[in-house]
Formats: sequence, C-alpha cells, structure tokens
Amino acid sequence: MLGSFSYHNPTKLYFGEDALSYLKGELANYGKNVLLVYGSGSIKKSGLYDEITAALNECGKNVAEVSGVMPNPTAEKLREGVKLAKSHSTDFILAVGGGSVCDYSKAVSVSVHCDDDPWDKYFARFEEPDCEIVPVGCILTMAGTGSEMNGGSVITNHEQHLKIGHVFGDEVMPKFSILNPRYTMTLPKYQMCAGIYDIMNHICEQYFSGEDDNTSDYISEGLMRSLIVSSRKAVADPEDYEARSNIMWTATWALNTLVSRGKSTDWMVHMLGQAVGAYTDATHGMTLAAVSLPYYRYIMPYGVKKFARFAVNVWGIAPDGKTDEQLAAAGLDAMESWMKELGVVMKISELGAADEMIDGIADATIILDGGYKKLSRDEVVNILKASM
Amino acid sequence: MLGSFSYHNPTKLYFGEDALSYLKGELANYGKNVLLVYGSGSIKKSGLYDEITAALNECGKNVAEVSGVMPNPTAEKLREGVKLAKSHSTDFILAVGGGSVCDYSKAVSVSVHCDDDPWDKYFARFEEPDCEIVPVGCILTMAGTGSEMNGGSVITNHEQHLKIGHVFGDEVMPKFSILNPRYTMTLPKYQMCAGIYDIMNHICEQYFSGEDDNTSDYISEGLMRSLIVSSRKAVADPEDYEARSNIMWTATWALNTLVSRGKSTDWMVHMLGQAVGAYTDATHGMTLAAVSLPYYRYIMPYGVKKFARFAVNVWGIAPDGKTDEQLAAAGLDAMESWMKELGVVMKISELGAADEMIDGIADATIILDGGYKKLSRDEVVNILKASM
Repeated sequence: MLGSFSYHNPTKLYFGEDALSYLKGELANYGKNVLLVYGSGSIKKSGLYDEITAALNECGKNVAEVSGVMPNPTAEKLREGVKLAKSHSTDFILAVGGGSVCDYSKAVSVSVHCDDDPWDKYFARFEEPDCEIVPVGCILTMAGTGSEMNGGSVITNHEQHLKIGHVFGDEVMPKFSILNPRYTMTLPKYQMCAGIYDIMNHICEQYFSGEDDNTSDYISEGLMRSLIVSSRKAVADPEDYEARSNIMWTATWALNTLVSRGKSTDWMVHMLGQAVGAYTDATHGMTLAAVSLPYYRYIMPYGVKKFARFAVNVWGIAPDGKTDEQLAAAGLDAMESWMKELGVVMKISELGAADEMIDGIADATIILDGGYKKLSRDEVVNILKASM
Repeated sequence: MLGSFSYHNPTKLYFGEDALSYLKGELANYGKNVLLVYGSGSIKKSGLYDEITAALNECGKNVAEVSGVMPNPTAEKLREGVKLAKSHSTDFILAVGGGSVCDYSKAVSVSVHCDDDPWDKYFARFEEPDCEIVPVGCILTMAGTGSEMNGGSVITNHEQHLKIGHVFGDEVMPKFSILNPRYTMTLPKYQMCAGIYDIMNHICEQYFSGEDDNTSDYISEGLMRSLIVSSRKAVADPEDYEARSNIMWTATWALNTLVSRGKSTDWMVHMLGQAVGAYTDATHGMTLAAVSLPYYRYIMPYGVKKFARFAVNVWGIAPDGKTDEQLAAAGLDAMESWMKELGVVMKISELGAADEMIDGIADATIILDGGYKKLSRDEVVNILKASM
C-alpha cells in the first residue's frame, strides 16, 4: 500500500551534450560571490575547469575555490571549506565533480551561516539546518550517487572511524544540476563500475522492504532493467553515449526520493558498506558490492517472495515450476553473474579490511530495521566475515 | 538514446488519507482573494466542499466560486471564469475536482492578467503566457489526467468543433496538489475505468515512438505493469485502497513529463480521441479507448519491435518461438482483453459518433508525426470507420 507521504523535488536538471550552455543563465539568478568546489583536478585536464571559469568570469562572479575534495570527504575538509565560504561571504556554491563533491557542497551550504561545528551538528547530532542555506548548483562528472537531485550528504570522520550520511530536506537540494553523459566517459572503468553498482544498490535498498503492492517497486524494476541493459553495453564500450546517458539518468531517479514514496526501505547494505569505508577509505560503490551478496543471501529467507519477484521481474527468470526459494536464489545468482561481468569487488578483504578490523567495523555499523530481518551484532559480524 | 532535455517539476504533492490536513499550511503562502473552482457539485454531497470552505474561512480568505465546470470545459465557461477571476482580483485559484477542473483552472490562471480572449490566445493561436500567472493549487478527486503535476490544459470549443490541449511550462504547473485516493472511491465505475484507460494511454503515447534504448521506456513499462495489476483489483473491489492509491500515483507519473524525457512521443490516439470528443462531448478516456485498438493495430507493422517488447515486458507474454509479429499481435490482444475486463467503450459509435460525422472528425484530427507511421487523412478516416 502507498502510505501517506509528500513529494517535492524542485531541482532543475539540464541533461545532454549541450547542458553546460545553460550554466550562465542559471548563474544570473544568484549573487556575486561564488565558491567553486571540485576534486582531484581531473576537470583541469579535461578542459571543463576552463569552460566553467570562463562562464563565471563572463557573469562577473567573484570566485573562491575549494579543490581536492576527496572521494570520501572528511570532516576536516568540511571545516576548511566552511571557513573559506564564510570569509568569502559566499552567495552561491558551484560543485563540479561526482557525488562526493556534491555531497560536500551541500554540507558546506548548511554550515556557512552557522556557528556550530558542522560534523558535530549535522552528522554526530543529526540536527536539521536552522540557519540560512546557501544555494548550490552541480555540474556532474560521474554517475552514481544521485546527489545531483537529492538532499543527501555523506561525510567521513577518520578519527572516529565513522562515515555518516544525512538526508536533508528539499531546501538543501541543488537548485540546478547540469548532466552531460560525455563528462562521465573519462572515468576509469573501476570508477564507472563502482558507480553502476552504487545505482543498483540504491534501488535495491528501497525495493527489498515491505510486502505490499506498490507502484514505487514497479518503477524500481523498470530502472533496474534499464541499468542492467545499459551497464553491459557500457562495459563493452565505455564510449557508448546511449548507454552512458541511460546510466546517468537512472542514477538520478534511483535516489531522488521517488522510488521510496509510500513504502518502507532497508539501507542496511549502505550501513555495512559505510562502516567498511570508514575503516578502509575504499571506493563507496565497491564497499556496497562487497557486502551485498552475503547480506542478501542471509536475509533472503525472510523476504523470499520479494526476492522471487526480483528474479522474475528484474532478471527475466521464467517462474515455471520453480518454488519461491528457487526463484529467489536464481535471482541473486543472476545478480552475482552481472556483478562479475562488471568486475566489481566481491570481498571486503580486497578493499583493505583485515580480520582485526571486523569488530570495529561491526561497531561502526548502524543497525536499521526496515529490511526483512533486523540484524544482531553477531549477524553483522558473520556477514562481514563472509565477505573476507 | 536520451536526447538533450531539461526537467523541472516544482509541484509539491501531499498524498494519502490525511493529505487535506496540509491545505491550511499551503494557503498561508498565498494572497487573500481565492477563486474556488469545482464541477458538478459532487463535492458538496461528499462533504469535501464543507471541509475546504472551513479551511478557507479559518485562513481568512475572501472566496469567489466558479462551479459547474464540465468534464470537457468549454471556451464559454473559460471566459466566464476569467471574468469572475478578474473582478475578484484573484490571488490564488483552488481547483477541486478531476483533471477537467485542474485544466480549466490553469487556463484561467494564465488569463486573469491578460486582455486577449483566452481561447484565441492559448488554444487557437497557441501562444505562451506573457502576463502574470495566478498560482493554482489542486485537490484531486479523480485519477487519470495527471493535470495535478503538469502544465497541460484542454479546452473544448463546441462552436468550432475543436478540443485542443496546450501544455504550458513549469510556471503554470500547480504549486501544490492534494491527492487522497479515498476521494476517488465515490466515482461511478464508468468514470473510474475511463480514468484508468486515460492513464494507460498517456503512457502508450510516450512509449510507442522511437526505436532507441531509453530509460524512460523502462520506467513506462513499470508504470504500466503497476496499473494493470491495480486496475484489476480496483474493478473487483472499488474500495481497495491499495489499488486506488497505486492508480492515483501512477496517473501522476504517467503524465508529468518524466517518461517522455529524452525521447520522441506519438500522441495520435489523443488527437483522434479529442476530435471525437469535440463532436460527441463523450468522456475523454472512453474516446481514447474507442480509437486505440484500430489505431495501434494499423501502425503495429511500422513499429513491430516495440510492440513485441510491449507484449513481453508489459503483458508478460513468453517470447519463446514467436516472431516479432506474433508477439506484437499477442500484446495488443492482451491489452484488448484487459480493456474488456475494465468495460471501456471500444467503438466511437457507442459514444454518439454517427457516419455523417466521420468527415468532420477527420478534419478536426490534428495529424502529428512522432509515431511509427504518419497518417494520411484517408488513414484517419479508415481508423475512425474501424471504430464504428
């Protein structure tokens, strides 16, 4: 059943090879002092940095820069960005990069006009913004997190071995996002496939929960089918624009709140993966991939009907003569084959997790209860060990 | 391939049995002079009118009313509403009803601050608004048109035998819509099923076009699967809240621009159905149902691969050993069976179309070319005759 909910997603999206041409029109809507945020500098190599700074200059903007935002943005880096944003009297934040850069920019946006420490306020104490929020725009260079059209932000605190996400409300969502699938083509295959698995898991986290009949699950099945087809094409030919464009668009809709409307959700794979990430600093999508099959195979008996439906509706497995248990197992086997085709990491040990970390990772795993089985700490440990 | 596009849908939705409780909070955002728009008065019988006027009074609003908005709102009725809205110095329009009332309210909203005749400007000359637009909110009592989250408005001119739709931009979309599936339960079965077929056809119009691989089509398939399951439950038990809620939510996403992003679309069934409607004043969804199968069976050979995909991915027909032609035919046969289960009208003659009207209906049919076969006028006549 569709429970009660509200839906409001005001982010404006420009999609396609000419999407950047809309940047100047959007910049005109915001103030003079712009904070330009980006990552490792790959946008300098690709020429995108020059195009963007030219547009900013033509619009007469006064630009300060935060560069070097890492794949798992840290609390220290967040504090550094907030300090610069305050001293720059920032009117607008322009994020250029993947989900990490967008996430980071949103965390800065709610902290510029706030005196508290941003990690403590939003990630340790989980408070909501009660100050002016600086508007954010995104230029996306990697498909995966959906951060371009949601209020989510994930920050890592290495000191405390914590990687925590906060999903803010619609006032924190980017005002606009520019999505050019061509930009994602310069990514190494490892990053592309980590992004693809991240997308798949975002959908699974919202799909594998509840036993009701719900339009959201049917939309999820459509998104997963599209992703499976396009990911295979993208692995075969990373320059396949059609495939890369479908992957990028699927990523946006996999995590912009639509497919969770009116239903319960799980998110335990993210809790496990984020705890692994806090200890290993591994690529987010790969941490999810590595814990997924041990987790799903363990909870499958508790939600066998949904896993059987997944097999039929997503993987196209013919139901005839099979029990729900057989179908459910065949669906996860099909997902495993696909993950191997992508070449995603299937063991947390390959991501740097060592036996002596297991207890710490288990302690850092937040246990939720929206899935088919609420895990005990022992069960968390067993799932982590099954991924070693 | 996903072509270039923009996406922006700022309508805020409140969905569920308690959705009306958000009305007062929303009304606080708008001015004092409210135009309350509704249809035949069924909202008075159901008690909804009293609840809404109580909320308006508690918010201190100064209310004028347009009642009697008909299922196919006319140009005359539009002029009447615009006149009243002007004299009332309307700050906000609250539409309470189905798609017709929402459509009508949007047409008023772009005409209050405009001196031109609204039919001439927006429907005959197809101009865009160049004046202040009065904000609109909707309280939906019927699922079907998707008008609650789009910029569309369809107005009928009986004098000229024309029924024309204008899809306005996001500035005309409702600011908020209140969707309580319970409200749709008082509808007679005929209207419920007309709405269900309207939803199905909105998706088909966007799906049956193009040969590319496109995420939008996968989302469409998910929506159609959900609609087929829920419509069968709703026909068996119109009080099935789960089914009615899924139908209502599917209706919204079937026509809020999402499933057409980056792809071509057809819309010829609507062109045929609207021409029938201009002559017969028949229920919109039934005009679509009556022309659909003759149209789809005629164009099927030109887009046989998509019709075969429709059979497999939407209707679950096993592909083994079948040619594309056999699959395509089986898919349309499955749709025909489902339409008969719903009891929708399959012949325009049953809607009041007479042989002597065929020429006029053909003349009133706008011929588009986004589908698998651009029709000639003779082909339009043949399709209409096949529905007699």
